[in-house]
Amino acid sequence: MSEKKKVYFCGSIRGGRSREDSYQKIIAILKEKYDVLTEHIGFNNLERFESGNTDEFIYLRDKSLLDQADFVVAECSVASLGVGYELAYSEAHRKPVFVLYDLTTNRKLSAMIAGDSSFKKLYYSSEDEMIEIAKGI
Amino acid sequence: MSEKKKVYFCGSIRGGRSREDSYQKIIAILKEKYDVLTEHIGFNNLERFESGNTDEFIYLRDKSLLDQADFVVAECSVASLGVGYELAYSEAHRKPVFVLYDLTTNRKLSAMIAGDSSFKKLYYSSEDEMIEIAKGI
Repeated sequence: MSEKKKVYFCGSIRGGRSREDSYQKIIAILKEKYDVLTEHIGFNNLERFESGNTDEFIYLRDKSLLDQADFVVAECSVASLGVGYELAYSEAHRKPVFVLYDLTTNRKLSAMIAGDSSFKKLYYSSEDEMIEIAKGI
Repeated sequence: MSEKKKVYFCGSIRGGRSREDSYQKIIAILKEKYDVLTEHIGFNNLERFESGNTDEFIYLRDKSLLDQADFVVAECSVASLGVGYELAYSEAHRKPVFVLYDLTTNRKLSAMIAGDSSFKKLYYSSEDEMIEIAKGI
């Protein structure tokens, strides 16, 4: 019996929740093949879910989950300090990273992410494309 | 003759330039005591300044500057993938990091930054306080 690979999904939390719906869709697709360690990133009630937790607890929990991950998938269409942190942390720990980014947003992807060849970039221009890309991971 | 310490200043670029004015003020204060490696982060014409540069060039240049830094100062009031990346990269390379954050913004600081005790947090609630804090670095 082979164990499923573990994926850490990254999305913006305090940077803004405008893509919550995309996070849920990507997580649902990843769950078909993988063990998703951070399903809570897609929760509608994420603020309530975390309300009893200190920042230090959240940081240590998420870093521990990231340490357990075989690979990382990050939806980067919303700017986020936490996602940027997780990307560099993953790189330092030599985990494969897939970066998803919607080219129709009005901001360009950070040069520190777009210019870093260690991240596999997966660009899309529609929800259908995003879904196809997520299925291909 | 003692050489000045080198500081890498981080601020949001593609994440949003609403704090450009603060970046300029902090950089001007840091320049009184230190060699600021990233003065361009405060430039009004930053987009034009970088217009001839590819993302890969910007990434490799900024990472090389970060490698040269003795310490890091990051203004984190605007969410930014690049700043988040630079913070985790600095931590992985054991550089001291000062995080400045305006408590009057309508978003909380990322738990991945606020909860990470390796970053020295410097919170402020007014421009005068920000200036005093920057002078104290």
